[in-house]
Amino acid sequence: MKAEIITIGDEILIGQIVDTNSAWMGQQLNLLGIEIYQITSVHDDRQHILDALANAEKNADLVLITGGLGPTKDDITKTTLCEYFDTELVFHPEVLEHVRSLLSGRNVAINKLNRDQALLPAGCTVLHNSAGTASGMWFERNNTIFVSMPGVPFEMEAIMTEEVFPRLTKLGLAQSIVHKTVLTIGLPESMLAERIESWENALPEFIKLAYLPSPMMVKLRLSGYGTDEAIIRKEIEKQVQKLLTIIPEHVFGFDNDNMGIAIGRILVESSQMLATAESCTGGSIAQLITSNAGSSAYFKGGVVAYSNEIKHKLLGVPMEAIESFGAVSQQVAEAMALGAMKALETDFAVATTGIAGPDGGSEEKPVGTVWVAVAGSSGVVSKKYVFKHNRERNIIRTTHTALNMLRTFIINENTHKS
Amino acid sequence: MKAEIITIGDEILIGQIVDTNSAWMGQQLNLLGIEIYQITSVHDDRQHILDALANAEKNADLVLITGGLGPTKDDITKTTLCEYFDTELVFHPEVLEHVRSLLSGRNVAINKLNRDQALLPAGCTVLHNSAGTASGMWFERNNTIFVSMPGVPFEMEAIMTEEVFPRLTKLGLAQSIVHKTVLTIGLPESMLAERIESWENALPEFIKLAYLPSPMMVKLRLSGYGTDEAIIRKEIEKQVQKLLTIIPEHVFGFDNDNMGIAIGRILVESSQMLATAESCTGGSIAQLITSNAGSSAYFKGGVVAYSNEIKHKLLGVPMEAIESFGAVSQQVAEAMALGAMKALETDFAVATTGIAGPDGGSEEKPVGTVWVAVAGSSGVVSKKYVFKHNRERNIIRTTHTALNMLRTFIINENTHKS
Repeated sequence: MKAEIITIGDEILIGQIVDTNSAWMGQQLNLLGIEIYQITSVHDDRQHILDALANAEKNADLVLITGGLGPTKDDITKTTLCEYFDTELVFHPEVLEHVRSLLSGRNVAINKLNRDQALLPAGCTVLHNSAGTASGMWFERNNTIFVSMPGVPFEMEAIMTEEVFPRLTKLGLAQSIVHKTVLTIGLPESMLAERIESWENALPEFIKLAYLPSPMMVKLRLSGYGTDEAIIRKEIEKQVQKLLTIIPEHVFGFDNDNMGIAIGRILVESSQMLATAESCTGGSIAQLITSNAGSSAYFKGGVVAYSNEIKHKLLGVPMEAIESFGAVSQQVAEAMALGAMKALETDFAVATTGIAGPDGGSEEKPVGTVWVAVAGSSGVVSKKYVFKHNRERNIIRTTHTALNMLRTFIINENTHKS
Repeated sequence: MKAEIITIGDEILIGQIVDTNSAWMGQQLNLLGIEIYQITSVHDDRQHILDALANAEKNADLVLITGGLGPTKDDITKTTLCEYFDTELVFHPEVLEHVRSLLSGRNVAINKLNRDQALLPAGCTVLHNSAGTASGMWFERNNTIFVSMPGVPFEMEAIMTEEVFPRLTKLGLAQSIVHKTVLTIGLPESMLAERIESWENALPEFIKLAYLPSPMMVKLRLSGYGTDEAIIRKEIEKQVQKLLTIIPEHVFGFDNDNMGIAIGRILVESSQMLATAESCTGGSIAQLITSNAGSSAYFKGGVVAYSNEIKHKLLGVPMEAIESFGAVSQQVAEAMALGAMKALETDFAVATTGIAGPDGGSEEKPVGTVWVAVAGSSGVVSKKYVFKHNRERNIIRTTHTALNMLRTFIINENTHKS
């Protein structure tokens, strides 16, 4: 089966946004065994869209169209689709109801532009958009399927996942595929590859491995293909279990886990509570932890101690320590972690202090210099890092490094206690 | 002048890499006043490439081709270009010299594959690649210019910057274009469109408007085209000033600003300091503020008061208020904001308390119910919202809504003082 992607809108053509939608769709379809033949990005222009549709219909069995479905004037996809399929817009009361209920929560009254979102081409199957007000549309003609979706990434992903993929599978157009992603931290990609080389070489033919490195972690994605889903699933489980015996200390979770979830799992089991004390990460650690549902079970809260005054006043860091060693020092980091544990009455605390940049560096402490401390009932440990990135990446690296130090510390302390 | 981009290679079609090259080229060309008519991504396939070239030649004055120039077998761009332009490969000794000198620096011996990189189509102008071994190529036919470049981003960027742009300017092919993006908050796209309809309809022909909505804001992008940059710039400024009189309270910044920068600008001017008190946003507000360089000039810090105990202990929220009205209530939100102002000794504070979800909702207070409070020397204000999204979006919406309330509050208070 051959697919084409058509993206509509000026934002991509003038480089205001990077087309991550096509990459996401390409990846997903590829895994389902559907080949992307071409990706075409065109203007919000009637004739240009018509040409692209006609061109795609010649080559592809599946045409995925994104963009141009917002309520404003510059979005013309819907009327152009009507012209292409020689049909007209009809009113869908259930879509209006959905739009109304989404907007009512935002204290926004519905207007004509919103009402028009319930007008959709006759003859198409309306695809429910659980994440927004612009519906998806499914057309079929001459053995080609056309799907039109909004360009907002999470809305497109919701429609693809909840509406398009299940239909393709039901029509027998997509094979079975099973994924499992293993999340690792603490080994760069090249060293990880060396450690698991013989395991990787022994994987069966129908299971593929991909390394997905990021500033936060290296993900290992196993993908199994075939006709019998149960067999694939069982084999992937077996391989993951093998992998866990090779790098147990580096695997912190699976699939959509993050470091906060991994830490939460451990703390929930031991009924222990956590606090944060952040200077250079500025709330980023607390934000990552609380992005996970249920985090209130193990996270009491934290202090973003951006100024020295707050480090002293709320966390009890001695002013002498700040004056003698500087705010970015082992002494201050450790005092912050111990102070947070005491002020928030928790079992553990993690603290960061550093120079995120671009200003504030010195010869002795260049931009990217960071101290991380972790405290528990057994005491406090700390470590210095020098990340040589821009502000944004220095903050991300510090956040994940601190959380991994915390994770290892908790596991060690709890192991020695029991 | 109309341009098209053709990217060659499977990596983009299977989603293994995101096509950042096209975004970069789109941005740069757009700045030079060259409109990108279409972006097309095709396979490493001879006939497919020939079709894409023929199609582009029909529509465009400039065709930028990336990818397929590496030394390995699956790269067939060069021979396909020879076929398209009915020419043949000839040897360029100066290119071989360049390849040899680059590789010697990497301690790599030259082999046949590298030597073949000095074979380039007769009749093209060779474009020097200062960043790699694959040369660029410049062809002209029937008033269309074709440029072929490697797909490695920094090599493509080097050839574009050092070879292609200077040639285009010399040929007088680049007009002027001016962009200005106005950042708005507080009105959904449809209502914003209604409010500014007559302004939009009265825009001169050479200025185009685009709505770019996201969960955080709606961006309005004005793009002006023409030969005289000064005239365009002046007209765009005039239109922006008009717009500011229509929706003054909804415009918080321009171009690459964010809400934290907008608030920081106001606070730096008045030499005032800010604190945060976050429950449901869990550090997200502090994180957004501190993501901006220089934020320590106006942000002292904050408390992530996730548990009721911390709300009481660190922010002085009375336990009776929590017990009588619940943690998600007007009383608690206001006490948090006032408490943060006092504990951190700042001029302003913003507080959030709500049910981010997916659990914790009730009939009276469903998931998405949020109270936001803002405090200053003039007192405290608060407002209730009910966002009906998932956890992630509820947190994002609350963060930006709270920051906008804070911004409006600061402006009002400072206006009344002065």
